[in-house]
Amino acid sequence: MNRVSSYDIMNEILERWSPRAFDPKAVPDNDVMAVLEAARFAPSCFNEQPWRFIVGSRDSGNEKWVSNHEKVLSLLNETNRRWAEKAPVLLIILGIKAFEKNGKDNFWHLFDSGTAWGFLSLEAQRRGYVTHGMGGFNKQQTGEVFSLSEELQPIAVIALGRHGQTEELPEDLRERELPGSRKPLEVLIL
Amino acid sequence: MNRVSSYDIMNEILERWSPRAFDPKAVPDNDVMAVLEAARFAPSCFNEQPWRFIVGSRDSGNEKWVSNHEKVLSLLNETNRRWAEKAPVLLIILGIKAFEKNGKDNFWHLFDSGTAWGFLSLEAQRRGYVTHGMGGFNKQQTGEVFSLSEELQPIAVIALGRHGQTEELPEDLRERELPGSRKPLEVLIL
Repeated sequence: MNRVSSYDIMNEILERWSPRAFDPKAVPDNDVMAVLEAARFAPSCFNEQPWRFIVGSRDSGNEKWVSNHEKVLSLLNETNRRWAEKAPVLLIILGIKAFEKNGKDNFWHLFDSGTAWGFLSLEAQRRGYVTHGMGGFNKQQTGEVFSLSEELQPIAVIALGRHGQTEELPEDLRERELPGSRKPLEVLIL
Repeated sequence: MNRVSSYDIMNEILERWSPRAFDPKAVPDNDVMAVLEAARFAPSCFNEQPWRFIVGSRDSGNEKWVSNHEKVLSLLNETNRRWAEKAPVLLIILGIKAFEKNGKDNFWHLFDSGTAWGFLSLEAQRRGYVTHGMGGFNKQQTGEVFSLSEELQPIAVIALGRHGQTEELPEDLRERELPGSRKPLEVLIL
């Protein structure tokens, strides 16, 4: 772990990072549900909860989740697919563009969906899993493959599973297999 | 607490909600820094960390933070100001619209900023504070008051402090002073 903090912060936050090395071992459906449950409790503008999930889980007891895993994998950019194909769970997080309450554009749908993803990632960490969010996938094709209505905005694919071995990654990815650095706090405060 | 979960999830997630009753007691600068530090470790697309913060803290040792508190308060909608004026800390979270790496639009800047806000809210919860995010503020005026460059997108104002007494809220707000309900998980999974 190359992360240090000058402040005592939640372990799950300090220790969470986004590895590419995934162990293909199945994630029980109950754990998948639990991380989605964590996302469910995120706050949102007018409590709209403008996040939705497509669940792909290769070894699930749920047949739809099994077939979704293959579909989600097919939507990833090649750069992501080469490592993410090992991940036993692949989720898509989607935002709802308009407010249910009045049909107007919801400026905060992406922001709120990001909060839900943050909660999901920390509950996964607490349960001993790693997560890796990816923007590199075909958003338009996602709408087609899953017959999504126009109001749904695919945002990111999330790989979920146990952390694997760096040595099993393609060679060029091994050096990058470290927690990312962060800008100094002073830069983030205007 | 009217929240129940069928899954064992992180206490900070289950117990966090967005009260309006704030205790005006000061939040030490060190706690403000710690919740921002939690936000700092959020994941983001290409690790761009496209979130920035304006800190307003009424009783801070930092004079800029003291004067920011008054400015942020003046930017709130009247509906929010009537309860949020008690909150000792008022933060603005802003997103950076374009990628630093290539200047192109960063589709994920709101999403990633939402993740940072989620981490901030949970670290606050862990430290015994409550938070309440607000979309109801004057975004254009925010740019003027703080002389922000065009690339910075004000997203939300966050009230931070200790939980106050419901009885001290304006009468019409007391009934709503409860954790919000959530849609069933089945609705969130497509």
